[in-house]
Amino acid sequence: MRTRYRTHLSSEITPELDGQEVIIAGWVHAKRDIGGKKFVLVRDKDGFIQLVISKKESPPELLRIFRELTFESVISVRGIVKKEPKARLGVEIKPLEIKILSKAKAPLPLDVSEKVPADIDTRLRERVLDLRRREMRAMIKIMDTAIETIRNYLRKLGFVEVFTPKIIAAATEGGANLFPVMYFGKKAYLAQSPQLYKELLAGALERVFEIGPAWRAEESDTPYHLAEFISIDIEAAFMDYEDVMKVLERVVYEILNNLRKEREKELKILGHELPEISLPLRRITYEEALEMLRSEGIDVKFGDDIGTPELRILSKCVKDPLYFITDWPRSAKPFYTKVKDSDPRLTESFDLVYKFLELASGSTRIHRRKELEERLKEQNLNPKDFEFFLKWFDYGMPPHAGWGMGLARLGIMLTGKQNVKELTLFPRDRKRLVP
Amino acid sequence: MRTRYRTHLSSEITPELDGQEVIIAGWVHAKRDIGGKKFVLVRDKDGFIQLVISKKESPPELLRIFRELTFESVISVRGIVKKEPKARLGVEIKPLEIKILSKAKAPLPLDVSEKVPADIDTRLRERVLDLRRREMRAMIKIMDTAIETIRNYLRKLGFVEVFTPKIIAAATEGGANLFPVMYFGKKAYLAQSPQLYKELLAGALERVFEIGPAWRAEESDTPYHLAEFISIDIEAAFMDYEDVMKVLERVVYEILNNLRKEREKELKILGHELPEISLPLRRITYEEALEMLRSEGIDVKFGDDIGTPELRILSKCVKDPLYFITDWPRSAKPFYTKVKDSDPRLTESFDLVYKFLELASGSTRIHRRKELEERLKEQNLNPKDFEFFLKWFDYGMPPHAGWGMGLARLGIMLTGKQNVKELTLFPRDRKRLVP
Repeated sequence: MRTRYRTHLSSEITPELDGQEVIIAGWVHAKRDIGGKKFVLVRDKDGFIQLVISKKESPPELLRIFRELTFESVISVRGIVKKEPKARLGVEIKPLEIKILSKAKAPLPLDVSEKVPADIDTRLRERVLDLRRREMRAMIKIMDTAIETIRNYLRKLGFVEVFTPKIIAAATEGGANLFPVMYFGKKAYLAQSPQLYKELLAGALERVFEIGPAWRAEESDTPYHLAEFISIDIEAAFMDYEDVMKVLERVVYEILNNLRKEREKELKILGHELPEISLPLRRITYEEALEMLRSEGIDVKFGDDIGTPELRILSKCVKDPLYFITDWPRSAKPFYTKVKDSDPRLTESFDLVYKFLELASGSTRIHRRKELEERLKEQNLNPKDFEFFLKWFDYGMPPHAGWGMGLARLGIMLTGKQNVKELTLFPRDRKRLVP
Repeated sequence: MRTRYRTHLSSEITPELDGQEVIIAGWVHAKRDIGGKKFVLVRDKDGFIQLVISKKESPPELLRIFRELTFESVISVRGIVKKEPKARLGVEIKPLEIKILSKAKAPLPLDVSEKVPADIDTRLRERVLDLRRREMRAMIKIMDTAIETIRNYLRKLGFVEVFTPKIIAAATEGGANLFPVMYFGKKAYLAQSPQLYKELLAGALERVFEIGPAWRAEESDTPYHLAEFISIDIEAAFMDYEDVMKVLERVVYEILNNLRKEREKELKILGHELPEISLPLRRITYEEALEMLRSEGIDVKFGDDIGTPELRILSKCVKDPLYFITDWPRSAKPFYTKVKDSDPRLTESFDLVYKFLELASGSTRIHRRKELEERLKEQNLNPKDFEFFLKWFDYGMPPHAGWGMGLARLGIMLTGKQNVKELTLFPRDRKRLVP
């Protein structure tokens, strides 16, 4: 799009434009002065373009402006495109006029050109500068493609996109870890997942998905938890956990495929290799997982969760980078999880594990009111508190199943980053509420 | 997708399958008993299919089940496809086996078959049943196509999808109408718009968009306000208000086009005709609007907002169903709105109006810290409270512009519905926190 600030993006300046006048705009990424010639590397959303100011040939005004330019200042440049086989991009611009649109203070609190590394706390504090870094922009494009792929694939399967309410009256899965909100004088909460609402919607629309925020007041500071995170959720009527596992592995497969095709450059910038997977992904049961761990000398009691340290050991046994752990015990899964008909100690449930990290989890849900009430009591929850949910099971709730996946956790697999905070534009945790 | 509950969706049962055994699943939408023959109309996500039980030929067990079937019970049916030119769909199913998966109580609190109308309060209370109605499912598909179109078109223009934080430390546009959240012992707020964060992101990624929730503690109960709503937002560096108006009108144009192509059936169900528009949309300035109103005997004081009652009158003068009102006075627009160089009484701003309703509003934003500080003070806000935002204007903030549009308000134009609550799956307002 042409605007008054630019006629071309850096990506549109090609050797074929040699001799033509253009206007470009962007940030001063680097400057070099080798006496007779002065170079400015200008960065925009698509990449870089170099300006060459010649002491002899350029308007003298430009030399003054060159001296004034600070890193990250924003400029708009009218100039002539010059084919230059020696230049990295095969093309340069001889400026006729440089306008400083926004002058940046020096020194910067963070080096955008990536010469000086910074720790994660500094980076998150100086996040807007951090997000200008090539690496972060590559990460954002990868995640953008992933999200687009998820939506396109789910739509192809007949899922519709929904927006469930985020302010809710009651806790979804028990009362822990909720943020309270004052709602017109009443106490309400921020939804910790769209679980109950997406189930209700499956009871009306059959196949629904949502990509939206969810909140958990996590006290602990780990690389895999956030107080506010983006959750990818599906719920489908007339499906069971085997069916939605197929949807999930297919979604992940499509993402990896699309990234290989469309984001080669960005993956290279991150130095990340995507895992090689083939479908169906390996499925091991919870009890098989416990067996494997036992053979490694790790004892997990039947009924307990399998934590990250144990998953690290388990993954060495399994070898596949991405696999399902299925059929979890009923104590390890929320009240709405369907118990197995063939073995009431277990549930129709699964986690998707990448190396040592739980990316997603899902299950067949209970679709009979009586069973739900029993499971609520079993987990010391009061069915009365869930009447807003239970009520609908009297009016034709179909069998259904679904899963939820953390977007930033998925990002760990897709980008090789090791912390969900890095994968979140402005992360929220115990100590971070700004920026 | 084949699952154990069904081999085919209703839409996949065609006369070509005549004689074949299939399994379908869905809700009991209607029943008819004409003595020797009994009919059950089964509804699924795609439409309807009719079962025909013959007193003579069908297994006697089916007659018992037929009697037992209540409206909205969920069933799975194994049967033989029968071509039937007389049937509405050209095809029926002769059931061999009917399983009741979930029996619905009778009577229902809301009639899903749309024979008995219900008022909006009843419908929102019995929302899960309401959403099963043909009309609501048509509405949801229309909105789904609209959202998909918006994202696809913005991506084509190089916008990336972002998720801004929803728990924020300070008010965006002054402190009114915010919901407070207790955040790890600190007081925080729910974002009333992604405004300041999307501006910061435009300062790093140039072109960003977001479709996500926002909150305003609206005390008033109108057909156009919600406490929680979905906001469609864009922000773009190196653009001004004229540029982003072009993006906006093009987005709307694409939506209307796609709906005409892909959602003809659903529009017919709603009995709604989409407005005919041609680009560019008409633009009238705020001062022209005041002039037009004056000629109709309506006096709006320069500097005041133009409310819905005045917009109704104005729209009769303008005639176009969709138009922009541009160049609003500085007192009517938030602090980050750029003042016009040519006339400091006015700003580079616009509203998009559909008939009498503001669908979207946007502007060129101020990109210089000093101007921002002045405008904050002018609006009785303290620049110190905005330091988390202002800080970045020291480090190369490009000129930028953007807009925000309410998804449900857009839906009024796209579906002909007259209340944003109807267009929201589970609306939140002063009195509604459940379901």
